[in-house]
Amino acid sequence: MLSRDVELIRAESPLVHNITNYVVMNTTANALLAIGASPVMAHAVDEVEEMVGLARALVLNIGTLSPAWVEAMVRAGREARRRGIPIVLDPVGSGATRYRTAVARRLLDEVGPTIVRGNASEIASLASADASTKGVESTRAAEDTVGLAQAVADRWRCCVVVSGATDIVVGDGPILRVGNGHAMMPRVTGMGCTATALIGAVAAVNPSPLRAAAHGMALTGIAGEMAAERAEGPGSFQLRFLDALHCIGAADIGRRLQLREG
Amino acid sequence: MLSRDVELIRAESPLVHNITNYVVMNTTANALLAIGASPVMAHAVDEVEEMVGLARALVLNIGTLSPAWVEAMVRAGREARRRGIPIVLDPVGSGATRYRTAVARRLLDEVGPTIVRGNASEIASLASADASTKGVESTRAAEDTVGLAQAVADRWRCCVVVSGATDIVVGDGPILRVGNGHAMMPRVTGMGCTATALIGAVAAVNPSPLRAAAHGMALTGIAGEMAAERAEGPGSFQLRFLDALHCIGAADIGRRLQLREG
Amino acid sequence: MLSRDVELIRAESPLVHNITNYVVMNTTANALLAIGASPVMAHAVDEVEEMVGLARALVLNIGTLSPAWVEAMVRAGREARRRGIPIVLDPVGSGATRYRTAVARRLLDEVGPTIVRGNASEIASLASADASTKGVESTRAAEDTVGLAQAVADRWRCCVVVSGATDIVVGDGPILRVGNGHAMMPRVTGMGCTATALIGAVAAVNPSPLRAAAHGMALTGIAGEMAAERAEGPGSFQLRFLDALHCIGAADIGRRLQLREG
Repeated sequence: MLSRDVELIRAESPLVHNITNYVVMNTTANALLAIGASPVMAHAVDEVEEMVGLARALVLNIGTLSPAWVEAMVRAGREARRRGIPIVLDPVGSGATRYRTAVARRLLDEVGPTIVRGNASEIASLASADASTKGVESTRAAEDTVGLAQAVADRWRCCVVVSGATDIVVGDGPILRVGNGHAMMPRVTGMGCTATALIGAVAAVNPSPLRAAAHGMALTGIAGEMAAERAEGPGSFQLRFLDALHCIGAADIGRRLQLREG
Repeated sequence: MLSRDVELIRAESPLVHNITNYVVMNTTANALLAIGASPVMAHAVDEVEEMVGLARALVLNIGTLSPAWVEAMVRAGREARRRGIPIVLDPVGSGATRYRTAVARRLLDEVGPTIVRGNASEIASLASADASTKGVESTRAAEDTVGLAQAVADRWRCCVVVSGATDIVVGDGPILRVGNGHAMMPRVTGMGCTATALIGAVAAVNPSPLRAAAHGMALTGIAGEMAAERAEGPGSFQLRFLDALHCIGAADIGRRLQLREG
Repeated sequence: MLSRDVELIRAESPLVHNITNYVVMNTTANALLAIGASPVMAHAVDEVEEMVGLARALVLNIGTLSPAWVEAMVRAGREARRRGIPIVLDPVGSGATRYRTAVARRLLDEVGPTIVRGNASEIASLASADASTKGVESTRAAEDTVGLAQAVADRWRCCVVVSGATDIVVGDGPILRVGNGHAMMPRVTGMGCTATALIGAVAAVNPSPLRAAAHGMALTGIAGEMAAERAEGPGSFQLRFLDALHCIGAADIGRRLQLREG
């Protein structure tokens, strides 16, 4: 249950190690703190293996990648894998440039993430070298990507989330669909990256990758709905989103959760 | 017309490629999203040429420069130039250190930006090696810099914006002056960088560099005025600024625009 | 007096040079602007010595360190020391990894900071190689660290702040304790880094390291109290905190300051 996950995060404050992009570092650290987790950002190759050994989840995000950062992601990822720490990969912009697609696939090959979250264009680019995207935004609908997501999940034995108006979660089990969210969310930078980070927090306390992925998306979507009710634009939305993560309770989740199988 | 530019940005959501500084990445991505553009941040030399090929404007900002980033700016800039994509340069802190001044001039020489936006001290440092500044804030008045701005525009065949209480735009055509803005804006980090990014969004849809530059400054200033009316300090100003960009309409622009020739 | 320090910062707008982490750059730049100082972020080895020569305080923060950044911190620090510019060090996460602890101690040895601010775990790790921490959050109480803080202050001849519910300031003089602050503050990323940056602003105008350190902590804590009164969670807290720094006056300080000797 999502409300149980939130309780556990607040009670245990799991350390979530992020190697993520410059644009969203502050945002995702604040989202993790607001829900009750304990974020750390560290990317030096001299320390990532030691740092991930302290963590209960690792979040890898290639939004502003460069070679030294990719090397750190590989090292941290392998160490997390060796220790059985859940790894969430956000292949930001995969498909937009050959470099991003190659790095995303390298991380799938060499790290073996537990969960991958991307928009439809990004997930499609992992499945097929022919897929392309425009910058970091999706040019596909999520529903058209179910088969490609399943192919990614099968090939790399991971759980795959395709974000969209309805989020689709595929992996080892029934397909899950999450209907939470709000139209304001794509007007704020890093909401997808935030969802990925929150999946990391949930994965730290919930051993089912499929459930952790779906719950992380639902948590993000519900907080987005709560924020949008009191926002006048994407600026006030951002702060209301953090306030909502801080205040969200079992009643909010019970009333709003849109999660179904199939 | 500025209101026409805003309509086009919202309708076409042009991709704006930013190679910018760490301090403002989140802020400028959010400003671009709030007005309706589609931002991407990418700085790896392995991908910048491919990424800029997807974009309709390139924004280069040297606020937290280092050698690898400068190399990426040169490569992306040359490719944008080759493809006829408008390039906006923000020479943050030029004049404060020899390194910044040298990099700003190198970008002028090797990239050939379409539009350069800086404060009076920064623009003066481009025109004359003797000019200096204090950190990243201006120590000159904009009006005293008109001749130097014209010299920069003539030498590098670009449009030059000198930001100040009244912004001055010089280039191939009459001098334009923009009177919009608010005293709270310099108390928020990255408002100048945000203006530069918004000029990029306008340049993606308006083929006149002079008009794009003036309209980007006016858009920033008008949103700042709207934000200041509802802000209690620089914290609430920031979110109101994004809300204003999201909500700004032809009526706001019609009532507030202060743009004149000469 | 703290209110006198704030007056001087607003009147003189001292340039504070920050070599800090990616997560908090925007936040700390905004806090410095909100109180009236003039922040600059610069980390290129090609320019840090020249930039620090323009500044009245240097803030070094190892939150997202890597070798090139450490090199820049050493160079800037040595130049600041040579020029008598106060240096504030924030050893973020020292104790969490061997690399961080080693870098923090290297900066103490080679730079000789004026003031060091950390949580109890971080300060303990400087005093003793056996101390360890969890990520970047403290696993100790501040009061249990007074002796270790004094050992750090004595060994490296600096002033040491141990942040906590009550902040403890030790150095060359009586121990100072600051009781200001609010429980919401640890739920926002970078509040400790912000305190460090504000200590830098105060140190630029107040020649007593002990007083500057205590006043910077009190200023942060008072603004936090003012913000919390009007916040509904960590999102709205952040903007109210900047608004409070902008608006804070002698009456607020007089009514709220909790600073005592011994």
